[in-house]
Amino acid sequence: MHSFKELSLLFTERFKENIIPTQEGQLYRAGDYFLQLGGKRVRPVICLMGNELFDDITADTWEAAIAIELFHNFTLIHDDIMDKASLRRGQLSLHEKFGSSTALLAGDILLVIAYDHLNRINTTHLKKIIQLFNRTAKQVCDGQQLDMEFESRDNVGMEEYLNMIEMKTSVLLASSLQMGSILGGASVGNQQHLYQFGKNLGIAFQVQDDYLDAFGNPEKFGKEPGGDIKANKKTFLLIRALATASSSQAKALRKLMTENSATKVKDVLSIFRASKVDEWAEELKEQYYQEAMKHLEAVAVMSKRKQPLKELAEFLIQRDH
Amino acid sequence: MHSFKELSLLFTERFKENIIPTQEGQLYRAGDYFLQLGGKRVRPVICLMGNELFDDITADTWEAAIAIELFHNFTLIHDDIMDKASLRRGQLSLHEKFGSSTALLAGDILLVIAYDHLNRINTTHLKKIIQLFNRTAKQVCDGQQLDMEFESRDNVGMEEYLNMIEMKTSVLLASSLQMGSILGGASVGNQQHLYQFGKNLGIAFQVQDDYLDAFGNPEKFGKEPGGDIKANKKTFLLIRALATASSSQAKALRKLMTENSATKVKDVLSIFRASKVDEWAEELKEQYYQEAMKHLEAVAVMSKRKQPLKELAEFLIQRDH
Repeated sequence: MHSFKELSLLFTERFKENIIPTQEGQLYRAGDYFLQLGGKRVRPVICLMGNELFDDITADTWEAAIAIELFHNFTLIHDDIMDKASLRRGQLSLHEKFGSSTALLAGDILLVIAYDHLNRINTTHLKKIIQLFNRTAKQVCDGQQLDMEFESRDNVGMEEYLNMIEMKTSVLLASSLQMGSILGGASVGNQQHLYQFGKNLGIAFQVQDDYLDAFGNPEKFGKEPGGDIKANKKTFLLIRALATASSSQAKALRKLMTENSATKVKDVLSIFRASKVDEWAEELKEQYYQEAMKHLEAVAVMSKRKQPLKELAEFLIQRDH
Repeated sequence: MHSFKELSLLFTERFKENIIPTQEGQLYRAGDYFLQLGGKRVRPVICLMGNELFDDITADTWEAAIAIELFHNFTLIHDDIMDKASLRRGQLSLHEKFGSSTALLAGDILLVIAYDHLNRINTTHLKKIIQLFNRTAKQVCDGQQLDMEFESRDNVGMEEYLNMIEMKTSVLLASSLQMGSILGGASVGNQQHLYQFGKNLGIAFQVQDDYLDAFGNPEKFGKEPGGDIKANKKTFLLIRALATASSSQAKALRKLMTENSATKVKDVLSIFRASKVDEWAEELKEQYYQEAMKHLEAVAVMSKRKQPLKELAEFLIQRDH
């Protein structure tokens, strides 16, 4: 058994070795630049954990974990192009560094290389893994599409926002974990509990992300809060506030969103507080976190084997206990 | 046994049915719009032919053929974004119709759906097919990258141009045919001859394409020739002319390329003719065509079974005999 930290280090080591044959040309050098920007590697690590819950980590699981991280980076590269984001992890985004066309193609090629790694998985599990991987990949693309569509709409409801977040963020965590468990020989019941654990954890994480972007301590959060508010980004907080604030508060909120005044962030936060969306968000996060833990409890393996997944959940949800 | 025309119709019918679940959202509707723009479906048909050379067409081969056409459309969608092409088959390109971001994601999702179809192939052949598909996909991406890099270079040699054309155009034809033959139980020797047939045919086709863009009869060619010349596009003709024309002709050619005068096309064509690149191109095309046919001859099946592939080659290379 390995801790979250150990698996993260092991994966990072393995992910440096021969993943991208940079001698093969500019596309590969571009892809490699992006992979070297780093990241927490949460998705491949959760895949490894899903495997180790049942057995020693298998060679197939390493291939799946690498494929998952390559897929995740493919989506980040294409998202950055769509969002015209100039920075990624404090460095130039790929399209800023290599141009949009090379970035687009480098993203494409990372996805194909992801399938190279999946294709090394033993035929016993190959079809099931590719099927789950593909379903998830399509959901992540759909999630990104919905996220973009929501930008130009002002009537996004909580249910459809939640659906978008599930697809854009949660399902990849959930299915990474399920893939690891499939390769560890888990029963369908255990697989489903792990999928639900990952999915609920992902939603809790997004609630927290939305919360921190509004109310986070700049010193701990690492950036000035209010980015989502300035951009009128649909978040759990905004959608809840528009739905539950008094009609005068909701009107004021809509006015602030069209005006972009100098005090916008402060004024929006004060409406958020007045309509108690801060407290609501903390409860919502806790609710999804507890739901996640309930599913982890239900997985039929000895409790101590679940320790790394608990650690990972606490790390993601920033709990210290 | 089916003729080229029959297979093309059969594939077109099958390709309309349930390939894209348009009820699932905007990305799917965008992808479907692009697929409905049509096309000759040469790549999936050559895959079916490669299969029928050895046996009745199998269910697995239909899946491979669909995957190949989805992949081809994925590359066209992304190429159109990179080339800022506003039209595709006389209709609005996908990014013109749905916006760049949706087009990018719709391309991505078509690639994932391609793997859904590959994943339905029997496990006996699955790994081999995915391996060949992936190698080809990476080469096609590399070819597009090189094509873009060549735009800003004025010292592209014949060998590297040929290498780019092989990757961007030929290998997909070659491997489509090989996939069909693998699924028909072909020996490795037969597979390799078919791959070489497809690869050489693809190069002959590109030589012809370059030739027609310069010297084509507008009535038969369907568009005014000279597009490549106006855009200073690297072609077999330009590279050959720069390498073999007299030094005064080469100098005049380079001058024409920087000037964009009103008589540019006429003047460049006259240098092409003076340095006999037109005759050279016809010979080169014939040479690759003959090389292709030699490999087809070498495939160890009865000659009459090869008739549809011969027809396809003649159709592509516009021969009437």
